Parts: sequence; C-alpha cells; structure tokens
Amino acid sequence: MAVKSWVDIPQGSHFSLANIPFGIVTTPKCADRHAAIAIGDHVLDLHEFAQHQGFSELEDLTPDQIATFSKPALNDFASLGQTTHNKVRRYLQDILTGETRFPALLKTNTAAQQACLFHKDQVKTHLPMKIGGFTDFFAGKYHAYKCGRILRDPTKALTPNYLHLPIAYNSRASSVIVSGTGVRRPLGQFLQDPTDSEPSFGPCSQLDIEVELGALVCQGNSLGEPIDVNKADEHIFGFVCLNDWGARDIYKWESAPLGSFNSKSFATTISPWVVLKEALEPFRVRAIENETKLQSYLQEKMTENVYDIKLETVVKAANGDSGTLSRTNGRYLVFSFAQMIAHHTVGGCPLEVGDLIASGTLAGPEPQSFGCFLEGTNGGKQSIKLSATMKRTYLEDGDSLNIRGWCGDDESSLVGFGDCEGTILPSIKPSWM
Amino acid sequence: MAVKSWVDIPQGSHFSLANIPFGIVTTPKCADRHAAIAIGDHVLDLHEFAQHQGFSELEDLTPDQIATFSKPALNDFASLGQTTHNKVRRYLQDILTGETRFPALLKTNTAAQQACLFHKDQVKTHLPMKIGGFTDFFAGKYHAYKCGRILRDPTKALTPNYLHLPIAYNSRASSVIVSGTGVRRPLGQFLQDPTDSEPSFGPCSQLDIEVELGALVCQGNSLGEPIDVNKADEHIFGFVCLNDWGARDIYKWESAPLGSFNSKSFATTISPWVVLKEALEPFRVRAIENETKLQSYLQEKMTENVYDIKLETVVKAANGDSGTLSRTNGRYLVFSFAQMIAHHTVGGCPLEVGDLIASGTLAGPEPQSFGCFLEGTNGGKQSIKLSATMKRTYLEDGDSLNIRGWCGDDESSLVGFGDCEGTILPSIKPSWM
Repeated sequence: MAVKSWVDIPQGSHFSLANIPFGIVTTPKCADRHAAIAIGDHVLDLHEFAQHQGFSELEDLTPDQIATFSKPALNDFASLGQTTHNKVRRYLQDILTGETRFPALLKTNTAAQQACLFHKDQVKTHLPMKIGGFTDFFAGKYHAYKCGRILRDPTKALTPNYLHLPIAYNSRASSVIVSGTGVRRPLGQFLQDPTDSEPSFGPCSQLDIEVELGALVCQGNSLGEPIDVNKADEHIFGFVCLNDWGARDIYKWESAPLGSFNSKSFATTISPWVVLKEALEPFRVRAIENETKLQSYLQEKMTENVYDIKLETVVKAANGDSGTLSRTNGRYLVFSFAQMIAHHTVGGCPLEVGDLIASGTLAGPEPQSFGCFLEGTNGGKQSIKLSATMKRTYLEDGDSLNIRGWCGDDESSLVGFGDCEGTILPSIKPSWM
Repeated sequence: MAVKSWVDIPQGSHFSLANIPFGIVTTPKCADRHAAIAIGDHVLDLHEFAQHQGFSELEDLTPDQIATFSKPALNDFASLGQTTHNKVRRYLQDILTGETRFPALLKTNTAAQQACLFHKDQVKTHLPMKIGGFTDFFAGKYHAYKCGRILRDPTKALTPNYLHLPIAYNSRASSVIVSGTGVRRPLGQFLQDPTDSEPSFGPCSQLDIEVELGALVCQGNSLGEPIDVNKADEHIFGFVCLNDWGARDIYKWESAPLGSFNSKSFATTISPWVVLKEALEPFRVRAIENETKLQSYLQEKMTENVYDIKLETVVKAANGDSGTLSRTNGRYLVFSFAQMIAHHTVGGCPLEVGDLIASGTLAGPEPQSFGCFLEGTNGGKQSIKLSATMKRTYLEDGDSLNIRGWCGDDESSLVGFGDCEGTILPSIKPSWM
C-alpha cells in the first residue's frame, strides 16, 4: 500500500500508513499513561481522539471498548480480539489517508489535530502492555547451531531434541523495559579465570545482546487446555523487537544445573510500538526447513509461517563512534510463533493476555549474520571491528545498542518497529555490599 | 502462646490463636473474592468484619487500608508493610481471645458472628495473591545432593557453584493453583526408552512432586537496586506450603540446553493461607551449615535464618488407601529466604508485590526423608511402599497428594499451613491432536 497520508510521513519511516502500530504514551497534556498509534514522525493520541469523538464513525465499537484507549496498558484493548484490532487499525488508516471518508474528524479539524496529534519528540513511550509471563524460546536455528559449536561439542552443536520441539525457558517479566531505558551493567558472581575454583564478584565483563522478536498475547487459554497450532495465531496481538541482554560470565557460573537466572534477569528491552499481526501478514515467508517428522500437535497447515523482517543492529559508543554490528532477519526460525504457542500450552500451561513470547536469537546462515556478540566473537575470543576506530568483544559502558526491524522495500510504505535501544550504564555497588 | 480463644479450636488445629493466617475466600453470602483469616475450623471474613465496624477499635488503620480486605487478592494488603500486617494480626488475636478487650465487636455480637464467622466447609479458598513472578530456588541441600547423585555424577553430586550462591530458575506463575484444584496429568514429548532417537508423545508417566515452602513478597525493589540481605526479610509477607509438581520424563527430553519448561509449567499447588512472617518468628533455627566463604552480599547477620517447619506428605489413592510418603522439615535449607532475595536482586532484577519465591525441594539428611519421588525411588528404579496394599514409583491418576506443614509441639498452639493438596486427573488428548 503506497497510499498517501495527509500527515507528512518521511521516506523510510517505519510508521507508514501500512503499519499503524499501537503503544502507550504520556504527553505534555496528560501524564497518565494511555494508548496511541505511531504515524510517520507523529503520534496520534487515541485517548484524546476518543475524547474528540474521533471514533464516532466506527460502528460497533462500544463506549467500553473505546475506554480501553484510556488505560495505562494495551491489555484490555488486546483482549478485545483480532477482529476489533483490525477494525480499529483500518478505521485509523481511513482517518489518516488523504482520501479519508471522515475529514471533519481530524484532517480538517484543527482543534482535534492540536489535541490529538503530537510530534514524536513531544511524547514519552512506555511499556505497551502489563507483561505477566515472559517466555524466551530458542527457535533461531542458526543461532542455536553457532552457539552450540562454541559452547558445546562442535560436532553436536544442536541437542538431540532441537528439531523436535521449540526449546524454551521461562524468563523474568519484571525486568522487561521499554526502548530508551538505560541498562545498568549487572553485578554478579563469575569465575575470573575458567580454572578458578572460587568465584569473584563484581560488574559483569561479558555483557551481550540477543536480537529477537517478541509476540504479545491477546487471548489466553485455560489451565489444562492446549492451544491448537492451527489456531494459535489468533492468540497473537502483535510483535515487537526485543533485545534479551545477557551476562555471559554470570551465566557460565550460575547455570549448572538449572539454567540461566541472574544472567538474564537484569533487563530485556522491547520496542514501544506493537505492530499488529495483520500489518505483518503481507510479509509471510517460509521458516527454515525442518525435515524432522513433528508430533501432530506441532504440525502446522500454514506453510509461510514466519515473517520477512529485516533486522539491523547498530552500536554507538559514548564518543559518537558507531557501526553496524549485524544484519539478520525474522525469518531465521525453525519453529513459528504458532508452533511455540502450541508447544507452550501442550502440557496445559495457561497463557494470559499480555504474555510476552520471544523467538530466540535470530542469526542468519552467513558467518557475519549473528544475533549476539557470543557468536560474532567466537565466545569472546576475538573482537568485532565496527568502524575504523571502534571494535568490541562485548559491550562497554556508555555504548548504545539499537535494533531496528522492518518489513518491505518501498520506502513510502514500510512496516517497522522503530527503535529498540538501550544504553549501558556503569555498575553501582551499594554501600552495604 | 496457649491463650484460649472463645471460638472453639480443635486440638491439633493448624490455625490456633498463635497463627492468624490470611487468605482469599468466597462465601455463601459473597461470590466476590475477598480477604479472611483462618481460626480453628472457622474462617473470619474480613470484608464482612469491616462492614460490621469490626476494625473500629484498631487505631491508625485508614478506610483505604480497611478496603484492602475487600479486594480479590491480598496484594494491596501485603503492600501496606509488615508493621500493618502485624498490627492487624495482633488486633485479630485480641478480638478472638477469650479475654478480648472488645467483646461487643464479635464475641458477644451474634449478628456480627452470623455475618462474619463461617465454618471452613462453607467457604471456598482461592489463590491468596495475584502472583507476578514465580522463582524456584534449589536451596534444599539434601535434595540437591540426592538428586545430583542420581541424575549426575555420584562423586560430584553438587555442582561447583552450589554452596556459593542460591541456585534458581524462573518458573511459571500462571499455572500456580490453590490447594484443592485438580492437577491434569500433562501431555508432552519424552523418550519412551532412553536409547530411543525419536521422541514419543503422550501422557507423562513420571509424574512427581516437590515438597517446598514459598515466600510471598510484600515489598518490591526498583530495577537496578539490589536488596540488602540484612533487610531482605522486610520484603516477605508470609509463607505457604508449595508442591512444585514435575514431569520427570518430559524434563529429561526437553531440558537440554536451557533447563525445565513444560515439565514444570502445568501446575504448582500452594496452600491457601498465608502464614505471616511474624507468626513464624518463634520457630527460627539455624540453616544447614555452609562453610563456604560467601560473597559479602550474601553474608547474613541473623544466624537463626530458617524456620523449624515440620512437613508431612501423604498420598491417598482413589480407592481410599493412603500412606505417608515422607517427613521432612523447612530447616533443611543451606540458604535462607533472605539470602535468596539478596541473590535474586543482586544483578538488579526487580521483585514485585505478589511474587512467589520457592525454597527448592526440602529433603532431610536421612535416606527416607525425601522431598520427591525421584529421590525416594532412586530415579524411578524402585517403588516406595506406602501401605500394606499400596506402593508407588510415581503418581497414578486419582492419587491425592497432600503436604501439611506446621510449627510447634503444643497441640493447642500450632502455627500451620493447613492443606496443600492436589488430585491427579487423567490426561485428555484434544481431538485436533
């Protein structure tokens, strides 16, 4: 869709008329969190738009449903279901298109525009949803393979179960933060030298990233009632970019025998704008082929079951130097989000509205297409040259790390996620330690 | 305290006047969830008690604070802090003692008694809190040792990190259920035979329990701000008994390389009544001695840092047969809950009100004092004789498993947790699978 908006949308904007992603903002006018959409360099405040009768031409949307735009998180709106999400999205596309059927609601209504349309620099974005559970999958096959080669046996890089089920672990929801929030370098225990018998304590020295996509749940399931893989997509509200920061040195020491804990619970950054599932539908592609005969609960009819989302990761140092760390893609999954949801619930585990399901790190097949420093540095053994003057093995204090993801090639109709950024703040050791 | 209540309290009741545990109930009179306390075989409905001006003699308790008793979860009451919890507990002890200073509020007030006091069989208990994060520690040293011998190298049963930090993983909050809720045997993938190269799918055949204690959080911390181990106890609202059901066969297949997932996310049962931290204080004892020199953030001044809580686990079969599976104790921890909290937050992870922190399985030093079937059956190799007519390797459909925990020896002043029970329901395979 290359239809023009009457709102000026710069070429290359992630927030074209084809997108209409939903988020939570505060504005100069309202310090209470509420819903908005992003359009070009602007934000349409849905709480204000509702106050100005902006939804008056959208039939079937009840006052209670409209009131979800005034809530501090998108959970209530999400729980209205995909039919409603799509109806609202299309209505807002109509409102914002040059040929809008309802110009008096916004296009030619200066008072409404002044109340509802903000430049992005005027608003602050917040976590889009109240996240209950945060599950991190491991479905990026090239990442699993590359890490397996480095951390385990190079000849058995993938564990025997890997292609039979989407591997996952429960991660920590309370430390999920929105893009732009600083990331404090964690303190923790680690072995200073791999041959040490006693651990050291201090700031993590192997601070890594993981480039992922996250799906947000709009419809749960009851305890003991698995979700059908061929209906699992109905449970997805939309997607965000996600950086699952990790402390590799803390992980190495803490993870036997139960897995990661503090190495993964200090921060996970997500992009603020939830790109609705419908907006990504034109970009479906096939996942990495899996020749394994899957159990029936994982057999998906949909063949194009992942999305072609370009992912670019840039490091910017405190001194202004910057360089592209990696280019990868959302398609580099061997299990789809539908399969992840089916597996997540097959034993009866309930999903809830607002749950965050992460894909696992997305690395590409090429050696230089990596999704974390661990892969790119061969486990910290060699540094990565990011620019003529900058190289990194792991992140340094003051580094800003931004993941940008987008679909499409036409600069006037991109469907993107905006920034997923965090800057590393130095550790602080409390006085009582 | 052997002070008598005017409410009849049977000898051996877990809910003596020395206890006063808080929970969430619905009653014949009110189908909305709200707060109550347990006393003997009765429940004092705090919502009704407030309506009947029951708190009128408790100075400093504001109407907003009293309104927390009408909420569907104890989170708001918990967030008022320990000073308030203790004040309310002591006030209710006064109301319920034979020598109450305020007989007109309940003891001699028939109308108030009829409205507020229910026999336990008249009420339904619910989850006491809205649980945000659920963290499962592994601080039961005898359990870790016994399992390590069975599952890993018998000569290196404890991993090298074990005595340096309280090992933990994030578990699944959405499947935490209250005592009395049926536990559906999970479906999942497993290797039918350890030598199989392809997994099978079906009902778990190694359904196990884990006897644990859970602490509920009443005060959080901000992202990036660790909690001082010597102030960590202030963050604890109270304790519950906890059964962390597990599917051992599913675990074996799914857990490489990231740990447990579906094997632990189908159900975790907790007892409905939160025993306040203050009620357990008389029962402090020393944890298992740890000669390891701990990092300073784990060095606790309090030497008696765990509680002497007797734990008894009984299996009852569908045909009525029953037998005691195990006797263990809450003291069999090598790290205290304060140390768990300090470690949980040392990297900056925020805890939130309502978070559930589980101890890890509590086994005793004796071979027969185990906290799960895995230990007692040597990894499923031998069955356990529970009665003249009943033996088990793992749980069977229809089995009811009850963990009862209590402090004290005087049958008239026990501080206990009541039942932590779940009955195994057979698997259901949905038609679409």
